[in-house]
Amino acid sequence: MLAGLEVLRRLAADGTPPLTVRLVSWADEEGARFGRSLFGSGAAAGHLDPDSLRGVRDAAGVALPEALRACGVELDRVLEAGARLAGAAAYLELHIEQGPVLEDLGLPLGAVVGTCGVERHVVRFTGQSAHAGSTPMGARRDALAAGARLALAVREPAAALGGVATVGRMTARPGIYTAVAGDCEVALDQRHLDPGALAAMLAEARSASHAIAAEERVEVAWERTWAIEPVPFDPDLVAICERAIVEVAGRCHRLPSGPLHDAAEVARAGVPAAMLFVQSLRGLSHTRDEDTRPEHLELAVRALDRAVTLVLDRADG
Amino acid sequence: MLAGLEVLRRLAADGTPPLTVRLVSWADEEGARFGRSLFGSGAAAGHLDPDSLRGVRDAAGVALPEALRACGVELDRVLEAGARLAGAAAYLELHIEQGPVLEDLGLPLGAVVGTCGVERHVVRFTGQSAHAGSTPMGARRDALAAGARLALAVREPAAALGGVATVGRMTARPGIYTAVAGDCEVALDQRHLDPGALAAMLAEARSASHAIAAEERVEVAWERTWAIEPVPFDPDLVAICERAIVEVAGRCHRLPSGPLHDAAEVARAGVPAAMLFVQSLRGLSHTRDEDTRPEHLELAVRALDRAVTLVLDRADG
Repeated sequence: MLAGLEVLRRLAADGTPPLTVRLVSWADEEGARFGRSLFGSGAAAGHLDPDSLRGVRDAAGVALPEALRACGVELDRVLEAGARLAGAAAYLELHIEQGPVLEDLGLPLGAVVGTCGVERHVVRFTGQSAHAGSTPMGARRDALAAGARLALAVREPAAALGGVATVGRMTARPGIYTAVAGDCEVALDQRHLDPGALAAMLAEARSASHAIAAEERVEVAWERTWAIEPVPFDPDLVAICERAIVEVAGRCHRLPSGPLHDAAEVARAGVPAAMLFVQSLRGLSHTRDEDTRPEHLELAVRALDRAVTLVLDRADG
Repeated sequence: MLAGLEVLRRLAADGTPPLTVRLVSWADEEGARFGRSLFGSGAAAGHLDPDSLRGVRDAAGVALPEALRACGVELDRVLEAGARLAGAAAYLELHIEQGPVLEDLGLPLGAVVGTCGVERHVVRFTGQSAHAGSTPMGARRDALAAGARLALAVREPAAALGGVATVGRMTARPGIYTAVAGDCEVALDQRHLDPGALAAMLAEARSASHAIAAEERVEVAWERTWAIEPVPFDPDLVAICERAIVEVAGRCHRLPSGPLHDAAEVARAGVPAAMLFVQSLRGLSHTRDEDTRPEHLELAVRALDRAVTLVLDRADG
């Protein structure tokens, strides 16, 4: 936001630009309080369903419509924000990478080619809970062991296809020292920029889960909890971001974004969009250790400013 | 308990036995309410430390000493129960197997040679929590993946050495779809009747955990949460149980007990002890599906009665 403000200040000092330039601070990108990410941009893009959010409450029991009202916003009117995107020529967003790729390459900045598609499933293995002391190894139908095998099996296809696959949680029941787990839920998140590669990763994971289930003599069931298709950014705008970065920092790397961003909602609404990433130290984000070098922050503001100028020049010429 | 009562009835009908015969219903063998198994037998054996239990509360907040008092028992006097074991010639216990071994062998009854030693540890892997979307597979330090590998690695040495090893729970943090787990706790329970084999299983698991930690670029730390040495039963009494079973059911299988039993506490107190197991259908226990055939129950009562008679005959002879 502060980078955008610097760009607006510079533009205002230079006179009237050939296009209206707006700076937007999207509401609740993270969704940490109510579990609904991309709230503001989703509303503007028309992808938010007010009815699906009416009953949602935060950890303290406050309903989402109430919390909005306290900020002067009516849930049933949020889709009206879509009017602000009408006729938009371009949307640019600057963000920290939240990953280690730019740091590994020794580059301060990158041009983002799009956001990855996501497939999120809970995979349930059902075996037979049994006494840990009296059930010989060969007689077990161990749901946790099946889950552990799946958590490991999803890694290789993701690495081979250049995507990512994560098991961040495994919940076994009864979940005690003295019982072989009778069931186990595996939380699986898979991402890729290419829809075909994402589908292949999912197919390989499904196939692995069935082979594992047969070998461990357990049942397996898949439930999709969430999914989103890959969102490619506008090629001309990506080229403009790349040029701006090269002019400011000498070199640029094109990369996809694994995390979702407001820019993806805007792009899905038909507005040409692209993003610039600035290096994250040690690839960390959503932790107190998240950090970016001051000199990289300065290059990021200069690159955003340069990209805005290139877009305005294009409109002018 | 009802099997013991039947034996007492038969003995009483037959006149005065050459030894005093007592039937004991041990308090709180399971420890489900306060987490302390073998309460009564542990007290009688002198292995229970009242001070360690003074502050223990159940899920509803009731303190253990209070719950005991409501039953007319003073925590500080429970060790006096040890006097009842003085001079005991033999202790016999009948129990369901809680495992599938006898059913697999097609046998109703088995003679128990002792209870397995148990090593219980929480193994903590510490990597780096990172965004599931932006952290390439090769850049991860995934604690859950390390935990999954350990859960699988402990199985082979247990099977090879004839013991059991169980991971019944894996707790990863932050424990969400969108984050590579930064740490993961693995609940590991290992059992064997032979102390050397148990030590070898533990050593192999430790060694595997360090190799896994190095490969996954995470840290590993072990904490022992509980352990008990194997308790072999009295060879003469095991032979008597075997003979009684053969007389009643034609064939007998000698087997160790993976679960702990009150008989182990009695044996550790120096009283000659042994157990008879009766078949559990599908090896299930601690579930509504726990069951034993009526004809096997009848054979079990007859075998216990026969074993008591053989012990009394030995005393007489």
